[in-house]
Amino acid sequence: MSQPVRLAINGATGRMGQALLALEKKDPRFVLAAAVTSPGSRELGQPVHQGDEAPLYSHGWPEEETIDVVVDFSGPAGLAEALTYCESRGVALVTGTTGLDATFAQRLNASAQRIALLRAANFSLGVAVLTRLLRQAAAALPGWDLDIVEAHHNRKEDAPSGTALALGEAAAAARNTTLRESAVYARQGRTGAREHGTIGFAVVRGGDIVGEHEALLMGQGERLELVHRATDRSIFARGALEAAYWLSGRAPGDYDLDAMLADRTSH
Amino acid sequence: MSQPVRLAINGATGRMGQALLALEKKDPRFVLAAAVTSPGSRELGQPVHQGDEAPLYSHGWPEEETIDVVVDFSGPAGLAEALTYCESRGVALVTGTTGLDATFAQRLNASAQRIALLRAANFSLGVAVLTRLLRQAAAALPGWDLDIVEAHHNRKEDAPSGTALALGEAAAAARNTTLRESAVYARQGRTGAREHGTIGFAVVRGGDIVGEHEALLMGQGERLELVHRATDRSIFARGALEAAYWLSGRAPGDYDLDAMLADRTSH
Amino acid sequence: MSQPVRLAINGATGRMGQALLALEKKDPRFVLAAAVTSPGSRELGQPVHQGDEAPLYSHGWPEEETIDVVVDFSGPAGLAEALTYCESRGVALVTGTTGLDATFAQRLNASAQRIALLRAANFSLGVAVLTRLLRQAAAALPGWDLDIVEAHHNRKEDAPSGTALALGEAAAAARNTTLRESAVYARQGRTGAREHGTIGFAVVRGGDIVGEHEALLMGQGERLELVHRATDRSIFARGALEAAYWLSGRAPGDYDLDAMLADRTSH
Amino acid sequence: MSQPVRLAINGATGRMGQALLALEKKDPRFVLAAAVTSPGSRELGQPVHQGDEAPLYSHGWPEEETIDVVVDFSGPAGLAEALTYCESRGVALVTGTTGLDATFAQRLNASAQRIALLRAANFSLGVAVLTRLLRQAAAALPGWDLDIVEAHHNRKEDAPSGTALALGEAAAAARNTTLRESAVYARQGRTGAREHGTIGFAVVRGGDIVGEHEALLMGQGERLELVHRATDRSIFARGALEAAYWLSGRAPGDYDLDAMLADRTSH
Repeated sequence: MSQPVRLAINGATGRMGQALLALEKKDPRFVLAAAVTSPGSRELGQPVHQGDEAPLYSHGWPEEETIDVVVDFSGPAGLAEALTYCESRGVALVTGTTGLDATFAQRLNASAQRIALLRAANFSLGVAVLTRLLRQAAAALPGWDLDIVEAHHNRKEDAPSGTALALGEAAAAARNTTLRESAVYARQGRTGAREHGTIGFAVVRGGDIVGEHEALLMGQGERLELVHRATDRSIFARGALEAAYWLSGRAPGDYDLDAMLADRTSH
Repeated sequence: MSQPVRLAINGATGRMGQALLALEKKDPRFVLAAAVTSPGSRELGQPVHQGDEAPLYSHGWPEEETIDVVVDFSGPAGLAEALTYCESRGVALVTGTTGLDATFAQRLNASAQRIALLRAANFSLGVAVLTRLLRQAAAALPGWDLDIVEAHHNRKEDAPSGTALALGEAAAAARNTTLRESAVYARQGRTGAREHGTIGFAVVRGGDIVGEHEALLMGQGERLELVHRATDRSIFARGALEAAYWLSGRAPGDYDLDAMLADRTSH
Repeated sequence: MSQPVRLAINGATGRMGQALLALEKKDPRFVLAAAVTSPGSRELGQPVHQGDEAPLYSHGWPEEETIDVVVDFSGPAGLAEALTYCESRGVALVTGTTGLDATFAQRLNASAQRIALLRAANFSLGVAVLTRLLRQAAAALPGWDLDIVEAHHNRKEDAPSGTALALGEAAAAARNTTLRESAVYARQGRTGAREHGTIGFAVVRGGDIVGEHEALLMGQGERLELVHRATDRSIFARGALEAAYWLSGRAPGDYDLDAMLADRTSH
Repeated sequence: MSQPVRLAINGATGRMGQALLALEKKDPRFVLAAAVTSPGSRELGQPVHQGDEAPLYSHGWPEEETIDVVVDFSGPAGLAEALTYCESRGVALVTGTTGLDATFAQRLNASAQRIALLRAANFSLGVAVLTRLLRQAAAALPGWDLDIVEAHHNRKEDAPSGTALALGEAAAAARNTTLRESAVYARQGRTGAREHGTIGFAVVRGGDIVGEHEALLMGQGERLELVHRATDRSIFARGALEAAYWLSGRAPGDYDLDAMLADRTSH
């Protein structure tokens, strides 16, 4: 077996950071090299894991450590510092930080010419695979009607979910259109017959459902149902860790989960 | 085995009438005694089935025949004549004729004191069972969120389906409310959290789906999904024939499919 | 609002006991009156909840406290002591302790003449409702083929699940047969056509699926699918607490979850 | 719009041939150029469609007609004659004839160097897409457990279905294994924990289900369900006609439905 990947987690005391620490601890493919958090963090200087050799929560990036890959869920300020560090040393970077402005996005585009950079809004591997499959099915069955049904817990305040919209956008692109042109968000009353080429959405809300998405492709006499069910929010940390393992040692470039899946399925 | 039930079909040349004739021919529990159609029907006088002893399509009700039960899918005029006949002879009547005005409905109520009368808007046995189960589940799990998802072919012009609304109304009644008070027909944009006690609807349209209805009862950590899938429109004729068999020989009264199911499940 | 129910938990340091304590703490319908554990328990004398007025873990049943209902997941020895206490004071008892011998079962039967006793092997309310619905559907649709599909995580070592078998037994009883006479546990190779009246089982194993059960009733042109999905093991504690609330103050008798559901659905 | 494709159907009086004739008649992309049947067929010399200009059922291949593509569901003898004709004229050939011996298979391999040849055992486009998607998902999610559930009508005499086995074989190949090495066909009794890397099968039989296949990929905290539902046997003729349209005018080669889908999804 090869050397374990030397991993740093940025935003280590956040919800995602903690989930990542819990997972890497049990995963022999990794060694934790740094757990970086914000300057005012209460946990600074405390050990990451009880009773073992893991590092302390720290602010600032270690000069002496060798790091293969950074996983970042910290926020714009933390990401900016991580980027500087990664670029100076050629370290790969996985980031799920969202809410970046256009200037920051441009900086990331430039960074991707110097380091291996992987960005995603949703790190569920299952959703990434579903997106990939849906794109192909939508293209392969152009005459079939397409609807997307999603279900979430009763506290969710918007509809459809961002993931449902992203799935719809991916399917629309595969059919050379956009959601703006083809989406139908509600069907009630005298709707008339279904318009050909539209993409419909249907929304279920209830209980504590973590998140389920179903793409239905409906033809004459047959149909396909492509379904993803999440039952635990740990899947996002799990996916980010898979991405870190895959990205470590890779050539500079701008990657996403789909690139990782394409690489996996091409062998 | 007991004597076969002597069956008359009213509206015999219509779509439902033809489906009923196709089914009864293969069903040894029945003997066809009459196939009644409207006065101007082209089929008058022709044999109902090729090369056998079945009766001819006729207008007017036979004086000489003994009939145990009439199944009617004819329309208001045909139903009025059938009622007169059934009342005069004490014959049971199953009817799926819709679009009756209040006066006619009153007449039916009165008839039910003299003959065994079974009325339904949807003769699918599966939908009748689903309605029955949903009513109980909604009452047994009062705190669980309830949504109804339905899917139909792409030519359907209204939403939600009448069956979805009827299911919702049954569930609402079981929770001492009504759809008017509790229904949510669309979820789009900033919906806010799900309001407790509401009943949500979600609609899928595509392909040639005959009709599917799913009631979701969603609690904390668990849920129930009660699903009916129709793949063939013959189920309505099939259910009407079951109702006719059950109704034959029964005491006068106002029955529906639920009464038949309650009777079946009580043994 | 009425007075809260005074609750005692027997086997309070076990997995189910801890889950019950976490739930009752947030449930204003209850006040915790006692948390009983075995004589050698490490937690004896410690507070049940941090920083509040909840009782200490104790062994032995309190003489001075008024208790409305005991929820027991302790084991045969603990249950025996709880029974003595409940009988002497007329306290209701909910128990999920399994593995009782015939003598013990007889004692429970006798106790149910003096106190309100509710026993269950699976306290999921959803499974209890599913069982109830399946029994009715199986009786109402006697000619429809019935299969049960279950899915569990990849560490489960037996198949089909106990719940799947219990569902099948309930459906078989509703059709006046037994699993011994009607079950088909595997279909592979040249099976021949499906034998009428059999009940088939199909088993899925994978991932960390908590437990899913689906009863399929398949007719001509239509079918019903009755599905239960568990996503969290807390549902068993949740169901036991519902049972405790319902049982509190009830007349002596031998109850199960189905009796509670029948009571709920009859109003 | 381009010129319609000139279509010949071989085995035109068989079940598939009749279904193809019914579909092409309504499809403006095609003109029927020949309807070939076996020498002893009763329909020889009769018109294929009533009251239009369609050809007569014939035996032997027309010398004077221009044909773009032949769709063959005739049997080995009919296929042999069609091959000779297609090779002599460079006509494309779609065939669903099964039960060919090794010598015949070699001849087909050779023919594919001279004409465009497309072979398939199952012409459902949905199943072809599902197979394609499953192959990718199985490769992209190597650590996820994979089971295949299939459901068919109660007259089916073997299990699992050929399509379920083909799906399993495709998934196994994508994971560098075979069903021989990895399949688990039944789970009953003390099975032990699921063995990593196996592919499980589960079988449902009942009612008149045309055919449903579900591939479950089960990870930690999430899963994918890839489902195909057939509700009408016309889908096979429909898929064969799509294949004929795609194959017409294509360069010589050995094609299958997957090649057609790959072509569609690459644009």
